[in-house]
Amino acid sequence: MAKRDFLSIQDLSLEELENLLALATRMKSRRTASMPLTGKTLGLIFYNKSLRTRVSFEVAMEQLGGQSVNLSVGLDLWQTEAEEGVAMDGIAAEHVKDAAKVMSRYLDAIAVRKFPTWRSFEEDRADRTIRAYARYADVPVINLESCTEHPCQALADLLTLRETTGDLAGKKLTLAWTFHPVPLSMAVSNSLLLAATRFGMDVTLATPEGYPLADDVIEQSRQNAAATSSGRVNIVHDLDAGLADAQFVYGDSWISIPHYGTDRDTELRERYRSWCLDTKKMQHTANAYLLHPLPVRRNVAVTDEVLDGPRSLIYTQAENRLHAQKALLTTLIR
Amino acid sequence: MAKRDFLSIQDLSLEELENLLALATRMKSRRTASMPLTGKTLGLIFYNKSLRTRVSFEVAMEQLGGQSVNLSVGLDLWQTEAEEGVAMDGIAAEHVKDAAKVMSRYLDAIAVRKFPTWRSFEEDRADRTIRAYARYADVPVINLESCTEHPCQALADLLTLRETTGDLAGKKLTLAWTFHPVPLSMAVSNSLLLAATRFGMDVTLATPEGYPLADDVIEQSRQNAAATSSGRVNIVHDLDAGLADAQFVYGDSWISIPHYGTDRDTELRERYRSWCLDTKKMQHTANAYLLHPLPVRRNVAVTDEVLDGPRSLIYTQAENRLHAQKALLTTLIR
Amino acid sequence: MAKRDFLSIQDLSLEELENLLALATRMKSRRTASMPLTGKTLGLIFYNKSLRTRVSFEVAMEQLGGQSVNLSVGLDLWQTEAEEGVAMDGIAAEHVKDAAKVMSRYLDAIAVRKFPTWRSFEEDRADRTIRAYARYADVPVINLESCTEHPCQALADLLTLRETTGDLAGKKLTLAWTFHPVPLSMAVSNSLLLAATRFGMDVTLATPEGYPLADDVIEQSRQNAAATSSGRVNIVHDLDAGLADAQFVYGDSWISIPHYGTDRDTELRERYRSWCLDTKKMQHTANAYLLHPLPVRRNVAVTDEVLDGPRSLIYTQAENRLHAQKALLTTLIR
Repeated sequence: MAKRDFLSIQDLSLEELENLLALATRMKSRRTASMPLTGKTLGLIFYNKSLRTRVSFEVAMEQLGGQSVNLSVGLDLWQTEAEEGVAMDGIAAEHVKDAAKVMSRYLDAIAVRKFPTWRSFEEDRADRTIRAYARYADVPVINLESCTEHPCQALADLLTLRETTGDLAGKKLTLAWTFHPVPLSMAVSNSLLLAATRFGMDVTLATPEGYPLADDVIEQSRQNAAATSSGRVNIVHDLDAGLADAQFVYGDSWISIPHYGTDRDTELRERYRSWCLDTKKMQHTANAYLLHPLPVRRNVAVTDEVLDGPRSLIYTQAENRLHAQKALLTTLIR
Repeated sequence: MAKRDFLSIQDLSLEELENLLALATRMKSRRTASMPLTGKTLGLIFYNKSLRTRVSFEVAMEQLGGQSVNLSVGLDLWQTEAEEGVAMDGIAAEHVKDAAKVMSRYLDAIAVRKFPTWRSFEEDRADRTIRAYARYADVPVINLESCTEHPCQALADLLTLRETTGDLAGKKLTLAWTFHPVPLSMAVSNSLLLAATRFGMDVTLATPEGYPLADDVIEQSRQNAAATSSGRVNIVHDLDAGLADAQFVYGDSWISIPHYGTDRDTELRERYRSWCLDTKKMQHTANAYLLHPLPVRRNVAVTDEVLDGPRSLIYTQAENRLHAQKALLTTLIR
Repeated sequence: MAKRDFLSIQDLSLEELENLLALATRMKSRRTASMPLTGKTLGLIFYNKSLRTRVSFEVAMEQLGGQSVNLSVGLDLWQTEAEEGVAMDGIAAEHVKDAAKVMSRYLDAIAVRKFPTWRSFEEDRADRTIRAYARYADVPVINLESCTEHPCQALADLLTLRETTGDLAGKKLTLAWTFHPVPLSMAVSNSLLLAATRFGMDVTLATPEGYPLADDVIEQSRQNAAATSSGRVNIVHDLDAGLADAQFVYGDSWISIPHYGTDRDTELRERYRSWCLDTKKMQHTANAYLLHPLPVRRNVAVTDEVLDGPRSLIYTQAENRLHAQKALLTTLIR
């Protein structure tokens, strides 16, 4: 049987997603069930920092009877080369081909976090490193957040939305760009938008001028929505208007694609310091729930009052990382 | 039931300490007993380096049937903010509130090491980071050495003293400041002084002029001693006099509070290079045992001859970290 | 019973090596056998980066029922001092004596990786750090690659050669120096040469002028060979000639001993960029198998075509690290 990777939330069919969410719900209610991954080991490869992802995956494997091996590139590991055929005469001492093939001999799945290098949008959007792991590994490769997607976060978000509101079809979700002092990738928002539209949500994307999501993600989301009876993607450039009547508000932040990798992004984003989710802004919504992937810049992206208020789902989202990933690992690892 | 933290050696009652030491002694004698923490996970969060603490806690959890997750802030994790209500517009990407609340969803206890930043004594003595973890976490928080205390070391020290001499009441312990080329905190000495006085030891604190322990710690220790029939805290500023008739000598070093965070401390400490525990100095004692928390600057703070001599308890202290912490974890984790 | 260390491939007798390889072969064929190391913990101390070694040892311990504790010196641990009797007045906060003796109280074996500092060949060849761990530890110490040897790699190499060709006596192995942009140690080649000669292989060492292996290693290898009926060590300074009729080619690279720790090595090695194992060079051999310890500088030390070709054994070697080390751990840990 071919191995299954999980690089994008699009990599699972709607039926597979439904089964996975159902399994996650069962696992959440009965923590001490069986140990289906006894004797299995997951490799966690971090090119970047992590808290929720690292801890939730380690605990997930332990609760399933297995183990994790934790590796930080640049600290523990050699620098890696991802391009095929190059003469490795620079600082990279190991090719991803070799790292992936060797680890496939020791491990039952490989999970990789690799953030953008910010040199160019075209280079980053290609997600060369994680795609190289997937190409060369003989075991499943899981995306722990690449430049373009964070599908494990989207699984937890779907589980959280389902727990809160049941059927997602036609429910109004606003994905709101918020101010953040340094540029971040679109990975979380891309995966969320793709996920929500597949389940027929009515999504409003509220961003300042100059902060679009990538064309191909918008196009795929519109196709996802069109395949449902209720799905929709609406784009606005005014935060108050974007929040109107929302049942769920998801705060996130990302870099300006037109000014990718230049000082212009830093200059431009300063104009949008008012894009902070506070109590007043949330009053435009239909008493919406607040979601955020964390870490969050408190009182910069979202205020304490909103984050710590009765409609905040942020810790439920974080907890659901664990349950969703236990279902994912059980599904992918043979 | 409310969660129990362990930030200070004062956080446990004398009866609880007695029970904990008795349990540690039983665990030391029968290594392969039961596995009371099966399925439980401890998070170990290091803002600073560690050997004994890291390894002894990992092995403790394993021997109890549980697991640890190891996290290094700044390497693995985001920089954290500990103050309530600030606008997070600087380098800290995650608030301790969120880190603590999220980890409480995954883990059964959280242990934190956070050393001083040396900017000001008032700031460091507030121990804001570990206190923030304790405030926000829903699971027990254990102090792996903060700016003000190292209570797990004190547990191991108490166990070692008890094993060596039985009842501690009235036994003469000299806590001796020793030269060290760079400033250290008072955490170990604070916890030891508080612990020893609660058990009625007759403690002499021998430090150079300008190297006091903090007033509140001395005051609490005197109260501890006063609650016993034999306890005493005597302060001297001459090493030879301080060692006279000691049954136990505990070597440690710390910064000058009056010159905290200034070059004056570095200058001043150079005058006290003779505060090194060597064989000649130890002849002032009543053939005392030597204790030290390690790591130790050999032949600078204590000589090889004393550290490796027949009255040295340094490796027993280190081993007792494991047994004392197994008892602690069993007591705190439900 | 005295503890057994494994610092050099010479530390095991030929009979012990035979038994260990036989055990590794049995373990490779039946993965889920017994759990002989239940309740045992291995400490992995890395002064330098690692992928294969770190992951294969962690997975080995898990598959044997035990656990590992992973430590990175300089990141997780204090800097260490290895010399006996010095006044520790510099940056090293902990003596290896104390680290080794303390860890012996917590752990069942200690494994250490420590690469050269490149200051002087005489200093590096003494392997002071790992020898200090072995001297002071009360539990077995395993070499994870020191300045002079990588005996665990040699175990995996022997297992791979045996699987491929059966009896090694008289088989022709060429150990070929290859170009590498930065200096590396001779550890892998030293251990391989010592191992291959003990099993009676006919070894050709092909290096450019100025890139010898150390005299004592050559001398010991010649003694090893002389103790067999078929062993031989032949040294040539021409790559094509060195490859002639080889049945196995092992690619590796190392620093120039005569120019150790100087810019002259960097200058000199540039002349030998043609020492790259490509398809044309491999045609001089008797359709040889290619071995390499990894990581490999693709298209600099060896070409993709050779590394990914049908005679490449590189991933089998890497996998055999796991099986050989499981046999080693089972043998050393009581």
